[in-house]
Amino acid sequence: MMLVDESIARQNIQKMSHRITAGGATFRPHFKTHQSRAIGRWFRDYGVDRITVSSLQMAAYFAGDGWRDITVAFPVNLRETELINRLAADLSLGLVAEDPSVIRQLDRMLEYQTDLWIKIDAGYGRTGIPWDDSGSIEACMQVLSQAKRLRFRGFLAHSGHTYNLRGGHGLEKVHRETVERMQELKERFRPHFPEIQISLGDTPTCSLAGDFSGADEWRPGNFIFYDLTQQAIGSCSYDEISAVVVTPVVSVHPRRRQVVVYGGAVHFSKEALKLGEKTVYGRAVSLHENGWEAGPGEAFLIKLSQEHGIVEFVNEQALNKVKPGTLMAFFPVHSCLAADLFRGYVTLQGKKLDHLSGFNETF
Amino acid sequence: MMLVDESIARQNIQKMSHRITAGGATFRPHFKTHQSRAIGRWFRDYGVDRITVSSLQMAAYFAGDGWRDITVAFPVNLRETELINRLAADLSLGLVAEDPSVIRQLDRMLEYQTDLWIKIDAGYGRTGIPWDDSGSIEACMQVLSQAKRLRFRGFLAHSGHTYNLRGGHGLEKVHRETVERMQELKERFRPHFPEIQISLGDTPTCSLAGDFSGADEWRPGNFIFYDLTQQAIGSCSYDEISAVVVTPVVSVHPRRRQVVVYGGAVHFSKEALKLGEKTVYGRAVSLHENGWEAGPGEAFLIKLSQEHGIVEFVNEQALNKVKPGTLMAFFPVHSCLAADLFRGYVTLQGKKLDHLSGFNETF
Repeated sequence: MMLVDESIARQNIQKMSHRITAGGATFRPHFKTHQSRAIGRWFRDYGVDRITVSSLQMAAYFAGDGWRDITVAFPVNLRETELINRLAADLSLGLVAEDPSVIRQLDRMLEYQTDLWIKIDAGYGRTGIPWDDSGSIEACMQVLSQAKRLRFRGFLAHSGHTYNLRGGHGLEKVHRETVERMQELKERFRPHFPEIQISLGDTPTCSLAGDFSGADEWRPGNFIFYDLTQQAIGSCSYDEISAVVVTPVVSVHPRRRQVVVYGGAVHFSKEALKLGEKTVYGRAVSLHENGWEAGPGEAFLIKLSQEHGIVEFVNEQALNKVKPGTLMAFFPVHSCLAADLFRGYVTLQGKKLDHLSGFNETF
Repeated sequence: MMLVDESIARQNIQKMSHRITAGGATFRPHFKTHQSRAIGRWFRDYGVDRITVSSLQMAAYFAGDGWRDITVAFPVNLRETELINRLAADLSLGLVAEDPSVIRQLDRMLEYQTDLWIKIDAGYGRTGIPWDDSGSIEACMQVLSQAKRLRFRGFLAHSGHTYNLRGGHGLEKVHRETVERMQELKERFRPHFPEIQISLGDTPTCSLAGDFSGADEWRPGNFIFYDLTQQAIGSCSYDEISAVVVTPVVSVHPRRRQVVVYGGAVHFSKEALKLGEKTVYGRAVSLHENGWEAGPGEAFLIKLSQEHGIVEFVNEQALNKVKPGTLMAFFPVHSCLAADLFRGYVTLQGKKLDHLSGFNETF
């Protein structure tokens, strides 16, 4: 079970919204972390009316709950133009591309006006045109200047390399570098596209940076739950993590100072985190009647197979409180992946919350 | 999309069934790998009428498709006795436990006769009573000898440490050691329990061992699909892998000799495999009209985020065949986890196959 503390999650939304919008930037949260219509509605209470998703199916899911301004922040897949046309008929839909021939074909296949962002690699090295590859960027702009349906919106990047930082160190440097590179592009093309915008936003940067004036909109997602990785990066404290995975103990091994829980790779994902010498998949918290306490870290998930998790206790005293049938709860290493595995949440008040149930299988 | 070659999968079933049953042992395949009623029916064509699963919900799922002899090979969770009673009313149900107090409570809560296996740790070090811990084993037997509903079936173990072997080396040693330890237990308790059985069975052992007479039944699961890990262990050839993950290319980066696919941790899982110096999450195969060819290994998935996969090509020639929209297929590192993420299959003939949709949330 993935247990969510709604009040912590709402505080995370409120704080993030305030940080980003205080200086005039737009908050366009990424909904791929929670993939939940119910949780999406919490965001409306803080003034959010435009969102980011990572697939067209996710866009359709949230469109079905009334969202009308959605950016699909994933390089467009030409095999999906039918769904794009269906969505673009009703929505203010933003797409992302990085290849002139894809942009040309897309424009030809579109039936409605659609926004397009050019994906820039501002230093992460995953997707996007490298920020200094002027030739490729200009080739895209050339196609866009003649497009019939596509409306150029600006440059979009994701600084995922902030996930390698620890304890907040080095964040401002990556942030400054990213903003400088994107601003340079904006200035270069503004004469021809006066409405041009910059879209950025990973959770570490949005949690730690002091100044959001370097981009027009920000798209963090993970902050709704946070997790052990974000705590290690420095993005949050343990008290700001709003979701835990709850599993039953099925066997106790005092000689090894270990217990086995029904909680494996199909619940936590195999995403691991180095904590000093240890590699962990989760950190135990103390469950109580009204929620949980992060506590001092008495036990860690140190090994996962498909459905078994091995929990190691730091001392015998803590282990003695546990027997077969005891429920244990853990902060996950990567909340997005755990949420995607559970595909549903329970709040502390016992309310069940939805999660998108599958993938886009149009290819 | 998870694409399955039914004819390879059926060959895998047929071969495994023949290996195990030729010498008189029982083949009780583990269905947690495929979790599919449709694929389960293929097994019936090879004489299989008893199965293994890893949760009560999975047992209920297969019971609903006519399976009547099901072992739940996971330490019993006392929070689930209601479902146990519901299932035991209709099925020949086998449970697994390793704690005398759990066995005592379970027996008290049961309404129907139910089989019980004692879980033994024969050297793996995950769950079970260590094979040489006579005191704990005898404490369980003591409770069982006075049980009202529970019928002691025997000792059950899983030699998961065979997954650390490579190229088939060392398999016979683990196999011999496991069988010796289990046989010793069987001999010791046979005077009081003449029907006592031994249940074993991981895919590496069942694919590589030469003699299955050391246990009464064998429970391999992964062999239905196999995967890159099993190929590295030596359990199968590439030609015996019956499932691939199909993903569309969304961007091409010739300068890095890389492409990006819409295929990330939520499709492949984060299970990684060391291949020489490389850490990989998948190995590209060549798709053609009638299926795929393993080929020489021209490209590997070397990095995954939530939905992006970075594919690195070994040379430019192979990369030149790929453009945005091209479908690429990959052998997964761990087919059980990929199957659990997709929760549905497509065969080469375009037939859709089911997969159990969620978890047991009774705790």
